Amino acid sequence: MSALEYTLYDYLPSGNGYKVRLTAKRLDIPYRLVSMDIKHGATRTAEFLAKNPNGRIPLLEVPGRGFLAESHAIIGFLARGSELYPDDSWECAQLWQWLCFEQYNLEPNVGTVRFWLTSLHKSAAELGERLTEKLAKGHEALGVLERGLESKRFLVGDRFTLADIALYAYTHVAPEGGFSLDAYPNIRGWLERVAAEPKHAPITAP
Amino acid sequence: MSALEYTLYDYLPSGNGYKVRLTAKRLDIPYRLVSMDIKHGATRTAEFLAKNPNGRIPLLEVPGRGFLAESHAIIGFLARGSELYPDDSWECAQLWQWLCFEQYNLEPNVGTVRFWLTSLHKSAAELGERLTEKLAKGHEALGVLERGLESKRFLVGDRFTLADIALYAYTHVAPEGGFSLDAYPNIRGWLERVAAEPKHAPITAP
Repeated sequence: MSALEYTLYDYLPSGNGYKVRLTAKRLDIPYRLVSMDIKHGATRTAEFLAKNPNGRIPLLEVPGRGFLAESHAIIGFLARGSELYPDDSWECAQLWQWLCFEQYNLEPNVGTVRFWLTSLHKSAAELGERLTEKLAKGHEALGVLERGLESKRFLVGDRFTLADIALYAYTHVAPEGGFSLDAYPNIRGWLERVAAEPKHAPITAP
Repeated sequence: MSALEYTLYDYLPSGNGYKVRLTAKRLDIPYRLVSMDIKHGATRTAEFLAKNPNGRIPLLEVPGRGFLAESHAIIGFLARGSELYPDDSWECAQLWQWLCFEQYNLEPNVGTVRFWLTSLHKSAAELGERLTEKLAKGHEALGVLERGLESKRFLVGDRFTLADIALYAYTHVAPEGGFSLDAYPNIRGWLERVAAEPKHAPITAP
């Protein structure tokens, strides 16, 4: 553990945190992990809010620089100049298109339902209409991803990039939120290809 | 209008579309505008879904390349290498941190309430609890922005960047969604500085 090492504030079941951990592992970037109990307000203390006023994980502490929030900003920072981050302007634009789509359409639906059910242990009855709405929107997002993977091995430029890491994070655990992937053959094939990439690790690996 | 000109599919009251128009104007990038009547399903036709499977504006057609969706991917593409897009890796990371925050915390609350009230003409009574929740989350986001602007002229690196364009888009029209900005002096001063930038244009300018 060196003075120059990154510190990652994270919650291991988090898909957003997983994106950062998977990127760091793939690129052999060491980091010190600080686990935050987000279910019991650990990210809403005055101490943590001084680090990230938005009160969320993942949060990366960069020695000599400061704190960086937002999973996609963090992975973009870590992967800059690497094989995971296309240099070509059109491929880079497509990469960010997928990252933005994930954060707007996929994570708030597919990811949130999983969080409600598996981390907060809410029941379907308790969630009612909110669950129905998020399931519908989640399947809409999965449909867009399925179409985007038509005849493609990976999302951008036919090779493994940050886009695959970011979209894999919540998609591969979608069934934990009750989203069956039966209707999405392209997604299922792609999930297998991503999991077969070097230095892959499961979502809860520190 | 040249064969190499960009085509922007957009809806003029859209803050997401405004980000693209403001970036293009600032950088003197010409484009052909195609107005889409999003309230009456224009982005959900088979013809449009073939262009953007996610069925949303803004959408940029790039001659010789294809279609690019997601406002932040589009402005990142247009501004690459320009004064609006920091080259320094830490500043670039902070830029994307603000863009991701906008799309996850600000737009879905501050922007959506405005859309419900001013484009869909829904009443507060009709919206009920959904409105209450979005107003609370919207103010939370505005609080984070207020804190981020403490002692700062602009969001990243003390100069006008894409972050200011992206966050300005929905923040400056927050009052249309019933969000008073009275409690946010840093935001109010910053909105004035952004509006005073060269080549500024109002949100509905084509």
